[in-house]
Amino acid sequence: MKMIDSGVCAAKGFTANGVHCGIRKSRTKKDLSLVFSEQPASCAAVYTTNLVKGAPLKVTKAHLADGQAQAVICNSGNANTCNANGIEIAEGMAALTAQALSIRPEDVVVASTGVIGEPLNLAPIEAGMPELAAGLSADGNQRAAEGIMTTDTVMKEAAVEFTVDGKTCRLGGMAKGSGMIHPNMATMLVFITTDAAVSPAMLQQALSTDIQSTFNMVSIDGDTSTNDMVVVLANGMAGNAAINAEGPGFSAFMEALNTVTVALCRMIAGDGEGATKLLECKVTGAANEPTAKTVAKSVICSSLLKAAMFGADANWGRVLCAIGYSGADVDVDRIDVSFRSPAGSVAVCQAGAGIPFSEEKAKLVLSEKEIEILVSLNAGDFSATAWGCDLTYGYVKINGDYRT
Amino acid sequence: MKMIDSGVCAAKGFTANGVHCGIRKSRTKKDLSLVFSEQPASCAAVYTTNLVKGAPLKVTKAHLADGQAQAVICNSGNANTCNANGIEIAEGMAALTAQALSIRPEDVVVASTGVIGEPLNLAPIEAGMPELAAGLSADGNQRAAEGIMTTDTVMKEAAVEFTVDGKTCRLGGMAKGSGMIHPNMATMLVFITTDAAVSPAMLQQALSTDIQSTFNMVSIDGDTSTNDMVVVLANGMAGNAAINAEGPGFSAFMEALNTVTVALCRMIAGDGEGATKLLECKVTGAANEPTAKTVAKSVICSSLLKAAMFGADANWGRVLCAIGYSGADVDVDRIDVSFRSPAGSVAVCQAGAGIPFSEEKAKLVLSEKEIEILVSLNAGDFSATAWGCDLTYGYVKINGDYRT
Repeated sequence: MKMIDSGVCAAKGFTANGVHCGIRKSRTKKDLSLVFSEQPASCAAVYTTNLVKGAPLKVTKAHLADGQAQAVICNSGNANTCNANGIEIAEGMAALTAQALSIRPEDVVVASTGVIGEPLNLAPIEAGMPELAAGLSADGNQRAAEGIMTTDTVMKEAAVEFTVDGKTCRLGGMAKGSGMIHPNMATMLVFITTDAAVSPAMLQQALSTDIQSTFNMVSIDGDTSTNDMVVVLANGMAGNAAINAEGPGFSAFMEALNTVTVALCRMIAGDGEGATKLLECKVTGAANEPTAKTVAKSVICSSLLKAAMFGADANWGRVLCAIGYSGADVDVDRIDVSFRSPAGSVAVCQAGAGIPFSEEKAKLVLSEKEIEILVSLNAGDFSATAWGCDLTYGYVKINGDYRT
Repeated sequence: MKMIDSGVCAAKGFTANGVHCGIRKSRTKKDLSLVFSEQPASCAAVYTTNLVKGAPLKVTKAHLADGQAQAVICNSGNANTCNANGIEIAEGMAALTAQALSIRPEDVVVASTGVIGEPLNLAPIEAGMPELAAGLSADGNQRAAEGIMTTDTVMKEAAVEFTVDGKTCRLGGMAKGSGMIHPNMATMLVFITTDAAVSPAMLQQALSTDIQSTFNMVSIDGDTSTNDMVVVLANGMAGNAAINAEGPGFSAFMEALNTVTVALCRMIAGDGEGATKLLECKVTGAANEPTAKTVAKSVICSSLLKAAMFGADANWGRVLCAIGYSGADVDVDRIDVSFRSPAGSVAVCQAGAGIPFSEEKAKLVLSEKEIEILVSLNAGDFSATAWGCDLTYGYVKINGDYRT
């Protein structure tokens, strides 16, 4: 398996495009994206657990009941959520897409992202559809990745090439996610395409398993979005014998999927609203996996620690504090903590108590762009990683005046 | 019952003082406080649920096993937590206090607040004790309230006068709390004194009941502190027949306690680190009390909503979003939301969907210092209030560089 420089068009038979149709005011910002598969594809998805669910999510869920899809339409600038006519608009988006591509509306995945509670007008989407569909191309992945961005500052794409059953397969994805991100099922918009042949059931199993250690382990601000979903389309055009059960093919597919999802997780966390640093909390030595995950997430979610990391302040007491209130059953007196980055590593806490360390060295380590917070519970063999970012003036600025 | 302008010295027989002894670098900041009762008092306490517990908390818990105390010693500038010699130092603080006041060390409540994981030196406390004890006076409540402040910008005191059994009683308290505050048992330092006669058991019952709707409903940043406790001392000097069971006397006492704790909660929330606004989320129409509380707390804890309130942005979608992921079982399509402040009120959401409102009016309403977020679930008769504050540049600044 190898990483390749691509996204949703990496796999055979997938084309994509992104345009500005007028939902967002700024003409320089794309706001409508389309991904299309030449052939109908197996499709699996996971959705936010928020009780407030965006209308697009409800429509998509209904469309994917048969495990099949052929296109994804996604707008930014408006979440089409908490609107009286939301379902109608989301179905309208699917119908317009189906018409433009000559496919069934039920094979369209609909997604929206942006402000909640402001009615979404179908007119600009209708007006933009001809250009959007006409511009579909095998190198349109970046345009599509751009069209789903909201407060994202960078496009998020990743892709791999791998082998199943002697056939070369590809899997690539794009993600949108910057704020309102907290581990609870899918908590961002992620669209992944592959030309591997995978049955809908195995595709769902792969995705549902994978997100437990990837998208569910990312938190920007503890707010679980209302609209988010992770969708995988597998069109089978690589020509492998379809993956219908566990085995070497499924394992290879899982590995490819995980490589792309971890890459996207790191991009999402590193591009958290206002973030200047990617934080990775790596917990080892846990007595069981839930404990490892709970501890890693609690650390990554601590506003106090996130602010300290912004200030490059080795305030490790906040790491212990976050572990202590995580709800996990841990022996505090066995915990070791250290910080690591490209500038080196510095141990700050051993057996639950502070140890002398060089503040100067710690400052250097914590001044890097990617910081690892290493927590050893010394109680077993389980481990987990969670991803987050620092809490900055930028986060407050972005969210203090999001709508205007 | 009436509010009176006082604090921990409101009740008969209580004196207090606060000095600078040298734990904090700035000579203008007091860092050691003492509260003393002429007579041994019934004492009840609640403690943080964080598994990482400060050494002072462990020592206090042991001292209060007999339900009696006579003094409170509390330093700021160092939490004496996650230090190898923490217990020894906390016991040393109790011993020094006991010696200076000629009381038993077991009757001393010990508390510390400040940075975690840096050894606390007993020397400045020993050096400061004579001045601290000599200066105890019935008007020393403000000095004591000052000595427990960390990042607090204002002193927090409240007191009431009430009647039990025909006798005039008083109850007053002081609080410290600004960051690392999240509802999970006691999440700040609060010391309350009263001259009402209350048995230790009834005092504990009163406190444990009261905090469920007061201190447990305050969140600044979602971080539950390692050191915090709420302690009530009742020395009986008002001369009422001791409250040994539920009844009119106990009810009067509960009301007095609640008046003071709610006042302190509002002060703590309004003085949250970096806060410019006090937020009160009032949930009504819940099917049951846990639902009302869960919803109120989830709203008050949302970083996104807190940032929106800082920006006076009526982004009510974030209120619905926070309700949706709270875990409470609510019917989203029945939720009404409005914002209220001294400048008026503005309804923004009805039956789970947005309604037209004047952005200009909303801006006015949200530009005040105290904002009420009113949520009606329209599903029953239960209600709850939670207190918090906005998320600001100031929070990031304070916590990005706390230790240095």
